[in-house]
This record gives sequence, structure tokens and C-alpha cells, in this order.
Amino acid sequence: MNYYQSKTVKGDFDQVIEQVTNLLKDEGFGVLTEIDVKQTLKKKLDVDFKPYKILGACNPQFAYEAFKAEDKIGSLLPCNVIVIDQGDEKIEVAIMDAAAMMKMVGNAKLEEISAEVSIKLEKVLSKIN
Amino acid sequence: MNYYQSKTVKGDFDQVIEQVTNLLKDEGFGVLTEIDVKQTLKKKLDVDFKPYKILGACNPQFAYEAFKAEDKIGSLLPCNVIVIDQGDEKIEVAIMDAAAMMKMVGNAKLEEISAEVSIKLEKVLSKIN
Repeated sequence: MNYYQSKTVKGDFDQVIEQVTNLLKDEGFGVLTEIDVKQTLKKKLDVDFKPYKILGACNPQFAYEAFKAEDKIGSLLPCNVIVIDQGDEKIEVAIMDAAAMMKMVGNAKLEEISAEVSIKLEKVLSKIN
Repeated sequence: MNYYQSKTVKGDFDQVIEQVTNLLKDEGFGVLTEIDVKQTLKKKLDVDFKPYKILGACNPQFAYEAFKAEDKIGSLLPCNVIVIDQGDEKIEVAIMDAAAMMKMVGNAKLEEISAEVSIKLEKVLSKIN
């Protein structure tokens, strides 16, 4: 089973992050958390890594429905969107497959919600250029 | 399949968060992100929700190994630890089952790493009091 969907575009790392953030906003997702993997690994382990960010995206309305349907769902939230500089101006954007992950939980209501979330996130991915 | 492990203790919400944060630190995990679910839902939707925090925990050494083994693993990181005020001084701490989740990926090296991470997180859970 694939746990993510991804798309690679030509571009600049920071500009793609900005574009993704705006597209997420258009679909009602705010970016609640941001982890700079390269910076964190440099700081904690003094190792060099490619530019790689993990954006924690959350649509409050869907999240609220999810919390009401499944109390411990916060252990699988927010929905991660990762942006990776793969070199040669190739920027890869990958989105966690929310529907696949939520299937693990075995809650029908939650599967409904996550199916809707997945459609919105796929729309974001399709619009990146 | 259970996607989390949980433990409920008697106590104060903020004190349990402090204790969990310290126990995570003892096992080499920093808290990289923190989402205040109650505050976020109030701000975005003007709804009332119980005190509920999502801590994004990360052990840099294990994370680095995971990134080398599986490029898109950032879509499933960090490891979430949630703290919920269930009322009557009952504070529930739940930890994402990293090993169960990483099985989804189908990468043997990653399963090895996440098994070690799970042991450490279970140790944190067992020490909460």
C-alpha cells in the first residue's frame, strides 16, 4: 500500500513551499507546524542533508469532525505535506495518504472524513506547477 | 489493529505534559512541534473542546536512519504523543504506534528502526505516573 502521493516539479524550494502553502489555504488547510529537517539534523547531529521540510496541514472543520468521531485521532494528525529538494531544480512534494492511514483505525465515520480530506489534498497536489 | 497505546493517570494537564516532555528527553526525543487542539478549534471554529495537545516527538538519530532508509518517511513523522484532559483529573497520554504505522510502508530497514523507537516510546508511557 502506498502511504503517500507525490509530484515533482521544476522550481525553487522556497517558492514551491509558498505555492503549496497557498494551495492548502485555498482548500481550507492551515499549516500548523513546520519542521526544517535539514536544519534539525545539522543542529542535533551535525550531518548534512538535502533541503527537506515537513508541513503539518490541518483543515479545522474536518479535524473537529475527526476528533468527535475518534478521540485519539490526534495521534495521527495533522496531515503531513513534505517538500524535498531532490537536486537539479527538482522539487518533490509528497502528501500523506490520509485515507490509507485512517483505514488503520477501523472507524467508518473517520474513513468518510478522511476520504474527503484526501480529495482536497489530491487537488492541492494536482495544482502544483 | 491498534494505532496507539495509551495510559491514564490522575493529575494536572500541564504537569503531565511537562513530565512527558522530560521522559521523552530521557529517551533522546525532543518535542519539535506542539499543537494546542483546544485553542486552535476555539480560534478557527469558535467551538469549545477539552484540553488536548499533540506533541511531535523526534529522536534525531533514529529519524536520520529513517530518512536514509525511506526518502518520503517525513510524511509520517514526527511521532505523535497526545495528552488529553478527560475530566475528573484524569489525564490520558497516548502514543502513536510507530511500529504498526511503519508496517504500512513495507520497508524492512524502516521496520527495524521503528521497532526500536516503539520500545523507547513504550518506556516513556510506562514511566508516566
